[in-house]
Amino acid sequence: MTVYLVGAGPGDPGLLTVRGAEVLRRADVVGHDRLADASLLDLAPALAERIDVGKVPGGPVQQDRINELLIEKGTAGLEVVRLKGGDPFVFGRGGEEAEALAAAGVVFEVVPGVSSAVAVPAYAGIPVTHRGLSTSFTVVTGHSRHAVDNDVDWDALARAADTIVVLMGVAHRAEIAARLQAGGLPAGTPVAAVRRGTRPGQRTVPTTLAALAAVTPAPPVPLVIGSVAGLALRWFEGRPLFGRRVVVTRA
Amino acid sequence: MTVYLVGAGPGDPGLLTVRGAEVLRRADVVGHDRLADASLLDLAPALAERIDVGKVPGGPVQQDRINELLIEKGTAGLEVVRLKGGDPFVFGRGGEEAEALAAAGVVFEVVPGVSSAVAVPAYAGIPVTHRGLSTSFTVVTGHSRHAVDNDVDWDALARAADTIVVLMGVAHRAEIAARLQAGGLPAGTPVAAVRRGTRPGQRTVPTTLAALAAVTPAPPVPLVIGSVAGLALRWFEGRPLFGRRVVVTRA
Repeated sequence: MTVYLVGAGPGDPGLLTVRGAEVLRRADVVGHDRLADASLLDLAPALAERIDVGKVPGGPVQQDRINELLIEKGTAGLEVVRLKGGDPFVFGRGGEEAEALAAAGVVFEVVPGVSSAVAVPAYAGIPVTHRGLSTSFTVVTGHSRHAVDNDVDWDALARAADTIVVLMGVAHRAEIAARLQAGGLPAGTPVAAVRRGTRPGQRTVPTTLAALAAVTPAPPVPLVIGSVAGLALRWFEGRPLFGRRVVVTRA
Repeated sequence: MTVYLVGAGPGDPGLLTVRGAEVLRRADVVGHDRLADASLLDLAPALAERIDVGKVPGGPVQQDRINELLIEKGTAGLEVVRLKGGDPFVFGRGGEEAEALAAAGVVFEVVPGVSSAVAVPAYAGIPVTHRGLSTSFTVVTGHSRHAVDNDVDWDALARAADTIVVLMGVAHRAEIAARLQAGGLPAGTPVAAVRRGTRPGQRTVPTTLAALAAVTPAPPVPLVIGSVAGLALRWFEGRPLFGRRVVVTRA
């Protein structure tokens, strides 16, 4: 019937949308990545087919094959949920899936999700915009050498946005920090690296551009760069009360 | 007890989060802006106090007064929901409210929302990132002359991000378009202006940087600028099926 491209949000299952929960509850098929919180899959009917299409090391499923799977299941008259971490259109390759579905004439719906780029900073007490500190933010990916070397003009970026959120950039953090400083950002610019964002055990590591290379957080962590990263409006970390959320149960 | 800074999402009530719905259902007090869809307020208990703190013309409620209200209600032992369009930390002044609550020792929780900056383009069939077209996006506000003249380095921005989302920028669109072209963006760069984003009657107006000044959409509309704005993966507009979502009923 319909293929739903659903954003699962950044990890805390409470950040799934009402619409996302609704379509999961009636799914015949769920094609999912490796999710920060797998309990979301419990929302789907017990007999729903669950397909892990995550690109696990050693067993990558190519994007083309995912597209084919969605088209095949969608044209078979099934209710199909493609469940992705964060938002499907923020580095989620949801655009490619939407293109493939549209080309194949399969009806689809996009169910946006809460993006990690904004929500993980929020759980670390960092507003990406803030009066007097930031009136703009940029979200970039630093996941590949190619991305770091070619896709992003770090020099311009250093001047363009007050807050920079780098997703998947930990491996290349030394180079990113060097380029942003070369572009004019002060060495003392606050940086926050957030591990296990929005989940129990979240930990925020505050540092600066100059010191970023020496920090050794385990990836994947988003890096938040800019004055707002110096705010410490902590409300989540160390408060297990907020970490014990349980996702709504199956209907 | 707790003050919840909740993002209501971009308009479609189905894009409220599960956690947002949960805290609304047990709220004693709801302080809300003018929302794109007021039906979300029906989620709160019938006897909950509803306070419109939106800055309506002629009767502005200053941010300081909103902060005081949240502190007063929170310290009175009430469950308080501060409900804002989009995400509370994306131009929502949620950071200021969090600061005030933290300073007053009031326990608070941030419930991020789906941001209009990503979801409105998504409902117009535009992924803010897309393989081969965009590996970064910037969100800026163009709501004031000061913001346009001083807060944003449009020249750098033209080179820094592949996709630019301008919120509240319609009034100054001629100047924004001119500055981005002066910064190096081609006159033919695709632009999409999206009216009534994520709501029934949504309409996307495709144009270019050169032609943007002549388009007369009624504000507020986000402007999406960049190659991705040329994609036309339309799935929502003209499909009333997707426009008839009803928010989950009161518990």
